[in-house]
Amino acid sequence: MERLRQQMAFIQEVDKLKNIGRQSYIADGSRKENDAEHSWHLALMAVLLSEHANQKIDVLKVMSMVLIHDIVEIDAGDTYAYDIEGNLTKRSREEKAAERIFGLLPTDQAVYLRELWEEFEKQETAEAKFARALDCIQPIMLNAASDGKAWEEHQVKLSQILGRNQSTRDGSSTLWEYARENYIEPNIKNRKIQDK
Amino acid sequence: MERLRQQMAFIQEVDKLKNIGRQSYIADGSRKENDAEHSWHLALMAVLLSEHANQKIDVLKVMSMVLIHDIVEIDAGDTYAYDIEGNLTKRSREEKAAERIFGLLPTDQAVYLRELWEEFEKQETAEAKFARALDCIQPIMLNAASDGKAWEEHQVKLSQILGRNQSTRDGSSTLWEYARENYIEPNIKNRKIQDK
Repeated sequence: MERLRQQMAFIQEVDKLKNIGRQSYIADGSRKENDAEHSWHLALMAVLLSEHANQKIDVLKVMSMVLIHDIVEIDAGDTYAYDIEGNLTKRSREEKAAERIFGLLPTDQAVYLRELWEEFEKQETAEAKFARALDCIQPIMLNAASDGKAWEEHQVKLSQILGRNQSTRDGSSTLWEYARENYIEPNIKNRKIQDK
Repeated sequence: MERLRQQMAFIQEVDKLKNIGRQSYIADGSRKENDAEHSWHLALMAVLLSEHANQKIDVLKVMSMVLIHDIVEIDAGDTYAYDIEGNLTKRSREEKAAERIFGLLPTDQAVYLRELWEEFEKQETAEAKFARALDCIQPIMLNAASDGKAWEEHQVKLSQILGRNQSTRDGSSTLWEYARENYIEPNIKNRKIQDK
């Protein structure tokens, strides 16, 4: 029973992910989404879009990875993609968070989730690259659906989007091409994304 | 590209799950949770708790099942577990919703998700039973964490909880015993659950 008690303590603790806000609006533009909703969306995308990965991937692994990839933000907060200062301290804040939060689990599962998170962060395996591609494509899709609201709010430049999405191509060039053509280009034309 | 267009149309459409409210409060009691957050929580529970299933299960299948099990509520709405009238029309409302929403996908994936949802609803396979157990245990955990707020609000009786959770035992007797002992019994003692 001690093992199950640890598992349930972790499951209750990570409920806090529902309170970690992100910068993307949900598709209808009514409010911003949170990390738990975002993670659900990515896991479902992993089920449906794995055929578009550049390399053959283990879908179960990608799903598990995206379900837990933001859990460290419970302690470390969400660092906006284009926040330069925040991104300087991000790594050390997140390491500490991983130690505490995954540490609530029985050792084998603590190690498993910690390694899965590290794998995502390192961006070396096919699964990590595809997970990152989903993580980047989903907010682009939401930004386009909500009329570029978040892009406008943060005066995002095309160069920033292109910079951040170099890795998206590594995970899935098909998804990247689709996003560029269907979500990004129309929003350069209508000036929601700054073209400079 | 038409295939990917259909997949992305579905992925954007199901964003609406983030607006479907449930009756359970999140653990800190600050607000009620929505279906997307709930589905994320269940998928993560599937990763961590599969060892407690009564029968050997396919974890990937359970994860996919819980990620999509509430999607029909986008059209049909959330029917509260103890709403007798709502539960009478639930099935036909949800069938229609499944037809429309899963129908947005390319045929092979529409069939796959529709069958996965039907499997969950029929409660015959080990995966469906374990998915249902998670679906029942998660709100019990949240109700206990938030001091029985939702139980009090709806004046829930122990007999109702026991009735609804006959199937929980079929998926995982270990999780059911744990929930009874740690979440339900203390809340009978402190009168958040009505003992009659």
